[in-house]
Amino acid sequence: MLSTALIKDFEALLGKANVFSDEADLQSYSYDSAVLNPVTPALVVRPTTTEQLGKCVKMLYDNGIPMTVRGAGTNLSGGTIPDKSDTVVILTNALTRILEINENDLYAVVEPGVVTAQFAVEVAKRKLFYPPDPGSQAVSTIAGNICENAGGLRGLKYGVTKDYVMGIEFFDATGEVVKSGSRTVKCVTGYNLAGMMVQSEGTLGVISQAILKLVPPPKAQKALMATFADVQDAADAVAGIIAAHVVPCTLEFLDNNTIVKVDDYTKAGLPVDAAAILLIEVDGHPAQVADEAVVVEKVLKECKATAVHVAKDEAEKFKLWEARRQALPVLARCRPTTVLEDATVPRSQIPAMMKALGEIAAKYKVDMGTFGHAGDGNLHPTILCDRRDPEEFARVEGAVDEIFNVALSLGGTLSGEHGIGTAKAKWMEKETSRGTIMFSKRLRKALDPKGLLNPTKLVGI
Amino acid sequence: MLSTALIKDFEALLGKANVFSDEADLQSYSYDSAVLNPVTPALVVRPTTTEQLGKCVKMLYDNGIPMTVRGAGTNLSGGTIPDKSDTVVILTNALTRILEINENDLYAVVEPGVVTAQFAVEVAKRKLFYPPDPGSQAVSTIAGNICENAGGLRGLKYGVTKDYVMGIEFFDATGEVVKSGSRTVKCVTGYNLAGMMVQSEGTLGVISQAILKLVPPPKAQKALMATFADVQDAADAVAGIIAAHVVPCTLEFLDNNTIVKVDDYTKAGLPVDAAAILLIEVDGHPAQVADEAVVVEKVLKECKATAVHVAKDEAEKFKLWEARRQALPVLARCRPTTVLEDATVPRSQIPAMMKALGEIAAKYKVDMGTFGHAGDGNLHPTILCDRRDPEEFARVEGAVDEIFNVALSLGGTLSGEHGIGTAKAKWMEKETSRGTIMFSKRLRKALDPKGLLNPTKLVGI
Repeated sequence: MLSTALIKDFEALLGKANVFSDEADLQSYSYDSAVLNPVTPALVVRPTTTEQLGKCVKMLYDNGIPMTVRGAGTNLSGGTIPDKSDTVVILTNALTRILEINENDLYAVVEPGVVTAQFAVEVAKRKLFYPPDPGSQAVSTIAGNICENAGGLRGLKYGVTKDYVMGIEFFDATGEVVKSGSRTVKCVTGYNLAGMMVQSEGTLGVISQAILKLVPPPKAQKALMATFADVQDAADAVAGIIAAHVVPCTLEFLDNNTIVKVDDYTKAGLPVDAAAILLIEVDGHPAQVADEAVVVEKVLKECKATAVHVAKDEAEKFKLWEARRQALPVLARCRPTTVLEDATVPRSQIPAMMKALGEIAAKYKVDMGTFGHAGDGNLHPTILCDRRDPEEFARVEGAVDEIFNVALSLGGTLSGEHGIGTAKAKWMEKETSRGTIMFSKRLRKALDPKGLLNPTKLVGI
Repeated sequence: MLSTALIKDFEALLGKANVFSDEADLQSYSYDSAVLNPVTPALVVRPTTTEQLGKCVKMLYDNGIPMTVRGAGTNLSGGTIPDKSDTVVILTNALTRILEINENDLYAVVEPGVVTAQFAVEVAKRKLFYPPDPGSQAVSTIAGNICENAGGLRGLKYGVTKDYVMGIEFFDATGEVVKSGSRTVKCVTGYNLAGMMVQSEGTLGVISQAILKLVPPPKAQKALMATFADVQDAADAVAGIIAAHVVPCTLEFLDNNTIVKVDDYTKAGLPVDAAAILLIEVDGHPAQVADEAVVVEKVLKECKATAVHVAKDEAEKFKLWEARRQALPVLARCRPTTVLEDATVPRSQIPAMMKALGEIAAKYKVDMGTFGHAGDGNLHPTILCDRRDPEEFARVEGAVDEIFNVALSLGGTLSGEHGIGTAKAKWMEKETSRGTIMFSKRLRKALDPKGLLNPTKLVGI
């Protein structure tokens, strides 16, 4: 339990309306989007200015109270689940100001709680483009995206959140202001602390402001859907497109299980007999788009696509992407528990990974739908199950273990874009080294000596 | 003095031919490309395998001996000048293997001492492209580029070294292996230690291997030279091109002082009466290149370019870029000392920065030639002087101080691409904050508790 005096101090700082201690409120912040046990925090506070945010950090540090900073809680690895029952959750969802969109210098400055999709809309109004588009973008926040290094559909061509962070201001564990990066394209003043904060999962500091890179939008796009009778043919096509030096904006895969379930729900008229479909979008200069679409079609046909459909207008393109966007929500409806993985392999290993996923699903008798960002090697094998059934869930855990092992054996990684959190910490040493874990712990201990910033996440202290 | 026993241990490990203790050898590694006092090291060692590199680090750590790791020593901020007379210099110039160039997955794996330009050539042979092109690329090494986050002429469109680092393996101060990043496009397994190592100037670990991103090369290029009667017109054109949403591959500026000196030496037929020239290259799909060249020409003419010349073939293009490449070597010939700065501003502030540079040169009566990467706000005001003349050098230092102050007041940064080293450490707090310096020192102390990795660079421990 927190002291009444401290709660009163928070109320004095933030106003009573921004300090939550009711059981119902606390329960609401006990979980995130990961399949993990909830932990109810001791208090939830919502600063409405970044000055207040810094003061909250300092008050908690001075009192030795652990803190979990939360944007929208959409991460899939437990990064925003409170560590212990004495944890205070700090919400950033009232820190939503876009401080600057600079059309001449192609950057924006934002507060941490700005919602990704809303930011992208504001940027588009100025005829600029913020490419990172994680699946959760409709509700996820920029600082959440930075702390998880969120990816998305456009990672293939445009990169991930990391590639758009020009600078970060943050409060260290004690509440001191730290600045790294700049409004300039090039900046090497001091350590790349902005880069270090990316994917740090709230363990090294509390972001108060970010400077984000913007780019001119592409002048044209073209979307295609290709149907395959064999999953391996689709996988070969993915590798073939990249090898042909076409880097599509988006190159997404849906397997038969996903296609059938999405079509059943959306009645979108998808090819339910197909073993797999690829959804591809190329963008850029109109002439480049035209040329690249020709190359893509050629590769698709060489890889035995049974049909290639080019979206003839914006409405048809929207319909194709809507099918992809529905993949996770539709799969998640089928069973009580959805285990969504993001093990990632070098792109040329997609055929081997696809094959392994099919074998793993059969071996462990799990209902697996696979979709995802095939173009960057980042598939989302999604296991539909009921966590309350111990026998079934043991098989699910066996399958997940094997997915990680296969990804690593193919030169890949545990996590492409969902983070480590508490969900994957035990596998980290296998991908990296004992020295990496010890180095990371020393780093963390130095920057958070009391162990108060999201202490059980990523690596222990 | 190092113990004879330790020198014998190094000889046993590396062979006598790779352990240098003669005065002439030691002198050769006492300086780098910065205008700073040399410091003669105690010993120079050259591992020929990365295993040996790790053992060298461990031996020096165990014996409490400071170490400076050196690629080609081309940095401009003192990053590779030994800290003290007991420092051991570790050379990476025998670790030059390109371990893998993966044409399907668009990455390469290299040892630290691979020379940047040689790497780019090998990559080009496989019809791929490694864009970072620091001015020193003919001799600089990949690990040196990473430790300094080297920029170059293509930073504007293609980014800097940081943007091409997918993963790094390094030895921590104790010689343990640390791994971060992956051969995959997306990877969020653990802290972004690879990002943290970028621009860390040899103070956090010793790089043994890097995974670098490659991209398909552009299909076409077009180079233009524009002549201006007024520096401000040239500066306005730079801002105007970016504002028109054209992102050239390269957008370089040379002022009259630089033009005259380059032409006098190279007899290249440059417009010696011009106040400034811009050299511009657009690249990409042929149709895009054609369209962008039209937009660029339009902006140049609107900004009162007195002449715009489009290179008609590769030979002419080469001649234009050769003039730019000669800027620094030609200026450096004029006087005994060349002080080359890299203060950087947001691109729209280039006109204000140009104006300020002219005023500063006049106020301090220094011979300044300015050229550089105008398109990314990264100019190189270059002061030609004689460091042995105290009166003159005091004026130079006054001018440099004022350049930094102006850059910061325009929302810019102390250093776009040359690093902090020992040259600019005293200005760092002004750009960042006291908290940033303390945070950086805690970080460093935790990762190098004995203070042996390039200890006087960037921030103290």
